[in-house]
Amino acid sequence: MKKKTSEKTAYLITIGDELLIGQVIDRNSAWLADKLTNLGIKIKKIISVQDKQNEIINALNEGLENADLIITTGGLGPTIDDITKKTFAKFLGVNMVFNADFFKKVKEYVAKRGHKIDDMLFNYSHFPEGVVFLKNRVGSAPGMMFNKNEKIIISLPGVPPEMKSIFSEEVIPILEKKSNGYYILKKTILTAGEIEAALAEKLKDIVASFPDNMSIAYLPNLGRVRLRIMAKGTNKNLLEKQLNEYINKIKEKIGEYIFGYDDETLEEVLGKILKNKKFFLATAESCTGGMIAHKITSVSGSSEYYKGTVVAYSNEIKEKLLAVKHETLEKYGAVSEQTVKEMVTGVLQTMNCDVAIATSGIAGPTGGTTDKPVGTIWLAAGSKDKIITKILHLGDNRLKNIETSTVYAIDLLRKFLQ
Amino acid sequence: MKKKTSEKTAYLITIGDELLIGQVIDRNSAWLADKLTNLGIKIKKIISVQDKQNEIINALNEGLENADLIITTGGLGPTIDDITKKTFAKFLGVNMVFNADFFKKVKEYVAKRGHKIDDMLFNYSHFPEGVVFLKNRVGSAPGMMFNKNEKIIISLPGVPPEMKSIFSEEVIPILEKKSNGYYILKKTILTAGEIEAALAEKLKDIVASFPDNMSIAYLPNLGRVRLRIMAKGTNKNLLEKQLNEYINKIKEKIGEYIFGYDDETLEEVLGKILKNKKFFLATAESCTGGMIAHKITSVSGSSEYYKGTVVAYSNEIKEKLLAVKHETLEKYGAVSEQTVKEMVTGVLQTMNCDVAIATSGIAGPTGGTTDKPVGTIWLAAGSKDKIITKILHLGDNRLKNIETSTVYAIDLLRKFLQ
Repeated sequence: MKKKTSEKTAYLITIGDELLIGQVIDRNSAWLADKLTNLGIKIKKIISVQDKQNEIINALNEGLENADLIITTGGLGPTIDDITKKTFAKFLGVNMVFNADFFKKVKEYVAKRGHKIDDMLFNYSHFPEGVVFLKNRVGSAPGMMFNKNEKIIISLPGVPPEMKSIFSEEVIPILEKKSNGYYILKKTILTAGEIEAALAEKLKDIVASFPDNMSIAYLPNLGRVRLRIMAKGTNKNLLEKQLNEYINKIKEKIGEYIFGYDDETLEEVLGKILKNKKFFLATAESCTGGMIAHKITSVSGSSEYYKGTVVAYSNEIKEKLLAVKHETLEKYGAVSEQTVKEMVTGVLQTMNCDVAIATSGIAGPTGGTTDKPVGTIWLAAGSKDKIITKILHLGDNRLKNIETSTVYAIDLLRKFLQ
Repeated sequence: MKKKTSEKTAYLITIGDELLIGQVIDRNSAWLADKLTNLGIKIKKIISVQDKQNEIINALNEGLENADLIITTGGLGPTIDDITKKTFAKFLGVNMVFNADFFKKVKEYVAKRGHKIDDMLFNYSHFPEGVVFLKNRVGSAPGMMFNKNEKIIISLPGVPPEMKSIFSEEVIPILEKKSNGYYILKKTILTAGEIEAALAEKLKDIVASFPDNMSIAYLPNLGRVRLRIMAKGTNKNLLEKQLNEYINKIKEKIGEYIFGYDDETLEEVLGKILKNKKFFLATAESCTGGMIAHKITSVSGSSEYYKGTVVAYSNEIKEKLLAVKHETLEKYGAVSEQTVKEMVTGVLQTMNCDVAIATSGIAGPTGGTTDKPVGTIWLAAGSKDKIITKILHLGDNRLKNIETSTVYAIDLLRKFLQ
């Protein structure tokens, strides 16, 4: 019988009592599952187990029997409840070995921070024999890779930024090399400014014409909807052609809402536009409370085009730092089209910039009136010559309102610039 | 032999392909685990499986063997990929039975919304023989309860508000009746400003003296470490006394790092202190880029004590809006103790506030020098009479640096005020 070229499979095992008493939501598994699906690997099961050696070993054995790859997260820290390393040694039937290099490095790391905890670090510097280290660029605990029965077992720390960094920079290249001729190609179209149901209605004819090996999923999240298009099969070139053809059709239909693809963020896209145009940006925030500034400055290199924000949480500051007229605030209120327009003009002048974004609204859950209920949010974006505005009517969840209006506000300037 | 009064145990099984491709984060399990822990029931394992009959049945059999209670979520909807009900019938060895009452009700429910999908609803109205219904006050799919081998098996919908409503109003009363007087009490101590390993070192004698029924876990996350203390047993009053006694010992030892307990956040705690003192706060941010403002304004009611922030991403803005002296920037640089001190003084004046926080640093990943490598961050907090400062030496992950220094900066003002 001809060997079937098929999907590789994986088990995810998350380790930690905190998961089983409901103290921590297992966000790592969904992140890993998404990345592994992108690599054409099918997750068969996700298991969360206690910090107990026999429970961990049972889950590892089950994974070894049923999948090609096992990834565990959690339990790699220096304290006594972190038993993953010892458990791996037992599972693999090897000894724990002292790693002098690691000990030296981690001692320096801790010493720099003014601590001295040698005993604990000595234990922390023991690893199962035969481990292949996966470099951790964010924290001190390295990832570990092992082989057993020709299967790959990878152990990552549970702290999300460390897990993500090791997976992206160390694990993905290894898994890509081991791919076996079956492909799941995925492209994600990023949209902002239109709801899921309306996008689906606009695309229904295109989606109905998809061939059997293609599928679409709508992933809405606070002002944005991601459209994930997948194509599966063994001929990579053909799949790429197929994917591009349908993505072009979708682009023709809903292009105005598309701000980017795959892992791009709205703030990165805006940053590129500003850099190309050599424009300087300033922001003036009320209800978004610094979230727009945070998003923009989360992009490395943003100081090349961003000068800063004034978060004006009181009318006094709106007048003093953003030159909003006292009469405007009196007549129209802080949450008004007139106020956000003046905030744009004011911050452009104060910060000596080319373009600006401004927000003012009632984030909630309290503070609404009959005229302006909670969730009423005014946005403005523009230059000294032209300002465009938008009003949002959102719900009463404070954080959701802050995040959604941040997305719409950044997207408003993107549209203004295009 | 006397029957031991011991913990009841549970398995949670979440059903759905969307979990295994990373499209949905499994938040239901953490919610259920928290509620079950409060009822004195220990979760032994959480398993996420695909919408496949044999995978679901394997997980159910494993749960039946190892726990007293199984709760599943997901797969109860009317569409063809919702196979949970049929799978339960097979697992229990019973037939699917048509429920005329349910069919009538659900037909009315759907008709009211203008749909007509009788075929689908006819199938949807079949249930495994012997089911005990658990009323769904939020949606149409009822929860189901079964018994097998004297164990309880409960199946709930995956939609969170429906799952939560059925669990709170139907399942909790049933489980409370079956409770056998065993308790798990937990308290979480929230700390900031010290790393996990150093806290563990300081507490090692106290932890070594814990009685057998008590345990501690360290949960670190970007500048904060949560310490979760648990006590298990049958005498609730005694457990409470025990827990308080050890928490007091821990407080004596590391009190300076403790900012709160359980679900409190650092920004909520700071907000309460400011409100009590009737102080107004302003912030002046460089490297944190608006993250401090965002954290503070994420607290509802923060406008009562927060006036705003100036994010000064350029030296020009630091001079113009924060009155940092040109000579200071020339002589010491933007990332210096002198600059953050002047930022505090400047923003206090500009925003007419009582206390302020300032940050300036190199968030990275680029922009470092030999003198001031990436991750060098200066923080200041204080009033017009006194300013305290702190320097951080972090890594080169931009987002981690922003989040960690935000936590340390807010904590610096908390310490200043105490």
